[in-house]
Amino acid sequence: MAALERVNGVALWRQIADSIRQSIASGEYSGTIPPETLLAERFGVNRHTVRAAVSALSREGVLRSERGRGTFIIRQDSYVFPISRRTRFSEGLSEQARVFDGALLGADQEMADAALARRLSLEAGAPVIRLETLRRADGIALSRATSWFPAGRFAGIADAYREEGSITRAFRRLGLADYVRRETEVTASHASPDDCLALGLSAGAIVLVAQSLNTDLDGVPVQYAVTRFAADRVRLAMDTG
Amino acid sequence: MAALERVNGVALWRQIADSIRQSIASGEYSGTIPPETLLAERFGVNRHTVRAAVSALSREGVLRSERGRGTFIIRQDSYVFPISRRTRFSEGLSEQARVFDGALLGADQEMADAALARRLSLEAGAPVIRLETLRRADGIALSRATSWFPAGRFAGIADAYREEGSITRAFRRLGLADYVRRETEVTASHASPDDCLALGLSAGAIVLVAQSLNTDLDGVPVQYAVTRFAADRVRLAMDTG
Repeated sequence: MAALERVNGVALWRQIADSIRQSIASGEYSGTIPPETLLAERFGVNRHTVRAAVSALSREGVLRSERGRGTFIIRQDSYVFPISRRTRFSEGLSEQARVFDGALLGADQEMADAALARRLSLEAGAPVIRLETLRRADGIALSRATSWFPAGRFAGIADAYREEGSITRAFRRLGLADYVRRETEVTASHASPDDCLALGLSAGAIVLVAQSLNTDLDGVPVQYAVTRFAADRVRLAMDTG
Repeated sequence: MAALERVNGVALWRQIADSIRQSIASGEYSGTIPPETLLAERFGVNRHTVRAAVSALSREGVLRSERGRGTFIIRQDSYVFPISRRTRFSEGLSEQARVFDGALLGADQEMADAALARRLSLEAGAPVIRLETLRRADGIALSRATSWFPAGRFAGIADAYREEGSITRAFRRLGLADYVRRETEVTASHASPDDCLALGLSAGAIVLVAQSLNTDLDGVPVQYAVTRFAADRVRLAMDTG
């Protein structure tokens, strides 16, 4: 690409990081990225700015710089996360990664406000359990989610998730053998400071935000979740064929 | 919310605009937004920064300031764009807006590169027609798309779209009575300068990027499209119930 326009509101190093990421994804760069001096010339910026972009991509696990040898591309492409009636985190990514884990960042019991109660088909004020979870594939943080469950039915979900590292297995331990995804709504926003911390993102990164509702096989809501995916690492795929 | 953290890489006025937008969407603000001085205090910034945020939201059609009367909320919520096997732009939004139009920004004939040819089930180098289109609901720009069509089958698609303002009707004119969406992949990125221009976005805004494939009822690809939705204005909804 030619020299970047200086877009007001987005730091130059971030625009350069995005552009390098795109060149990697498209296959324009492979193996290594071009040397710093060449990139600085191409983008019409100084070397410090290029270095900030490369260092952000290194922190994200896309690049690795080796002194005197160049900057290597570690990860070529983003993960494709399929959204369907049968969406399961590790199953959906099973051909793209080997090791999956889910960490429990926090859990609490609270009262459902009107909007949440409506989603879960509960009375407003009904007790719900909120879980904050982080999901990784091959050690790379892909998403963090806030999930709410009816407390009456899933009292032990926090402990079950902590031990199982999977919602599917936690449900199973609590007697729910199967569940389906009813609906998903996707939007995007800038990563919050909490997102950056949990997902290891650079400031100014973007997250895909998916609101989803899961039900049991009788259509009774069992989980409402807001999942924040690192947009640089994950694409959401819908098969409607 | 408390004073904003100064997130490196995203301008402060944009963070404030995002926060105001969220307060509008959640119903925390309704009718008008709080006065400038109050917002400046709440976010811990000076009035110029608040003014930049309000003016960005005004350009986007969310707010309108009236001298001496306050700043009014014009649009409360974003549009929900349903993605399904039967995705049609105006049908999907028909209960959310009254007037729909599609403008042709550009058209060209080119040769399919390897990736595009594979998607459209053509030979690499086969001629394709590329359309650049802009779609509005009630005068608000929601998305811009780059679409590719097999040139052999859809030679007249640019003229047909220019006159009809709709892909569905353009296809119909060219003898394709029906088509279905086979797959969609969603990611997000910062709006490019072209996006900002076409969609009337502020610098630093975010776009949802949907890559989609449409086929005829025999499964033969008829259109591959990359659509960039203003993330502040559109949510993508998938019903898997």
